[in-house]
Amino acid sequence: MYSIDQLQQKISNQLKSLPLYGEPSGLYKPITYTLEQGGKRIRPLFVLISNQMFGGNPDEALPAATAIEIFHNFTLLHDDIIDKAPLRRGFETVYQKWNTNVAILSGDTMFAIAYGELSKSIPELLPDLMKVFTKTAIEVCEGQQYDIEFEEQKEVNLEDYIRMIRLKTAVLLAASLKIGAMVAQAPLSEADKIYSFGINLGIAFQLQDDLLDAFGNQAVFGKQTGGDIATNKKTVLYLKAIELADSDTAAQLKKIYSNANNELNEKVRLVLGIFEKLNVRKVTEEIIEQYYHTAMSTLQQIDIPDERKNVLRDLANAMLKRDH
Amino acid sequence: MYSIDQLQQKISNQLKSLPLYGEPSGLYKPITYTLEQGGKRIRPLFVLISNQMFGGNPDEALPAATAIEIFHNFTLLHDDIIDKAPLRRGFETVYQKWNTNVAILSGDTMFAIAYGELSKSIPELLPDLMKVFTKTAIEVCEGQQYDIEFEEQKEVNLEDYIRMIRLKTAVLLAASLKIGAMVAQAPLSEADKIYSFGINLGIAFQLQDDLLDAFGNQAVFGKQTGGDIATNKKTVLYLKAIELADSDTAAQLKKIYSNANNELNEKVRLVLGIFEKLNVRKVTEEIIEQYYHTAMSTLQQIDIPDERKNVLRDLANAMLKRDH
Repeated sequence: MYSIDQLQQKISNQLKSLPLYGEPSGLYKPITYTLEQGGKRIRPLFVLISNQMFGGNPDEALPAATAIEIFHNFTLLHDDIIDKAPLRRGFETVYQKWNTNVAILSGDTMFAIAYGELSKSIPELLPDLMKVFTKTAIEVCEGQQYDIEFEEQKEVNLEDYIRMIRLKTAVLLAASLKIGAMVAQAPLSEADKIYSFGINLGIAFQLQDDLLDAFGNQAVFGKQTGGDIATNKKTVLYLKAIELADSDTAAQLKKIYSNANNELNEKVRLVLGIFEKLNVRKVTEEIIEQYYHTAMSTLQQIDIPDERKNVLRDLANAMLKRDH
Repeated sequence: MYSIDQLQQKISNQLKSLPLYGEPSGLYKPITYTLEQGGKRIRPLFVLISNQMFGGNPDEALPAATAIEIFHNFTLLHDDIIDKAPLRRGFETVYQKWNTNVAILSGDTMFAIAYGELSKSIPELLPDLMKVFTKTAIEVCEGQQYDIEFEEQKEVNLEDYIRMIRLKTAVLLAASLKIGAMVAQAPLSEADKIYSFGINLGIAFQLQDDLLDAFGNQAVFGKQTGGDIATNKKTVLYLKAIELADSDTAAQLKKIYSNANNELNEKVRLVLGIFEKLNVRKVTEEIIEQYYHTAMSTLQQIDIPDERKNVLRDLANAMLKRDH
């Protein structure tokens, strides 16, 4: 069995070996700029961990792992245009450093390169891998579209929000695990279970992100708290608050969100005050706990020795900052 | 043998059967809007004609043909953003009718759908089909990047221009023919010959387009002549003119191209006058003839009965508006 460090080293080596220094350099420089920034590489790690858990040879899963990482980074290039994001991983975003056209075209090229890496997988498995990868890619686009529409919709509810984050975030984590299992030639029933585990875990991750954005310790989590509130994001906290609030408080919250002229610190303070009053933090922790519990009981049902599941379980717990 | 009409009907039916009416409709409506506009469907037709020429069953080549047509349309969505094109096939472009974000995201989805269609090809052929398709997709992006850079470069030459149109236009036509041959399980040597035929024909098509844009009969070719001159496009005509002109005439031509204040009809008249004086029309016709000749002699070398090549040869001649 390879350790997480060893698997991460394999991913890093594989990404470094890609032929991405071609011409025209105007197309390739933004690609290497993006891939060399690093990031947590969680998705390819999930591919390899799942593959190893099901008794595969992680080297055979490396092309698919690389494909997923490049695909993920491609979506960031285009999402950053759409979201007008100035920074990503502490660096200027590609559309900001170059321009929108470059970010579009270099992103498109990365999408093709991702499929090119996938096609280096074991030939007999390729048709099924293609189907899962493509379905997932389409769903990620659907999720991004729902996210765009979400920001403009007046009436939104938690169910819509969960659907959106499932598509935008969870399906790619789930597909990473499933693809790892498929390359290990796990039975379809088990590959589907690890997918279901990934969906529930992915939703829990995103809800946890929402929670930390509002209530996290800035020093520990490395992000300015209240960023979602500052940008009027309708997170689980906001949606639960609207649901639980009396009509006066709900109206007050909506007004604060729609008013562009609020002083920022004051706005965050006011909204956090409403969240605290409505006990939204606790309610959200309970929702996360439900998704976590569903994920873990699905993992439990997978028909392999329990000790093989430890690496994935420990990693999931670490990512959810749990100590049990 | 199916007729061209019958093959076009197959393509049309296949495109109509795609599951493109899903949710969120904000993502899928621009896709159906684009695909329902039609267009000439030359690339999928090339896939099927080549397939049939090599003794294949065109129904087996339909998924790859569909993939290529969807891919081509995806590139148009993104190219129209980059080129700020208001119209395409007489309809508002997607970025114009909706917005840039929609055109980015619906385009990305089409790219994934294209691969999804490709993956329905005969499983044993999929790894090789993926390699050709992906290499081509990357080259098309490279061609578009060269095109963007081309417009900004001061010093350009015909060689650079040919490289650009080969990547931007010819490789996809060539790959269409090659993929059709591959699905018919033609020997690699013959698939490579039909690819080479496609490259040379594709370059001839694009040069012919340049010629017609300047010298075509507007009533016959349905396009405003002089459009390339109006937008300062460095076509084969312009590049040849710069090459052949004395220094005074070259300076005059560059000045007309760089001056934004010219009255449009006067500008077209002046440039066409220089083209005529330098005999650029004749020179370009000779270059086209060379590429046409290379294409046709490669077709000649393909090891199948000559009468099987007639459909492709006739179509190529029709597209080049030749009567021999």
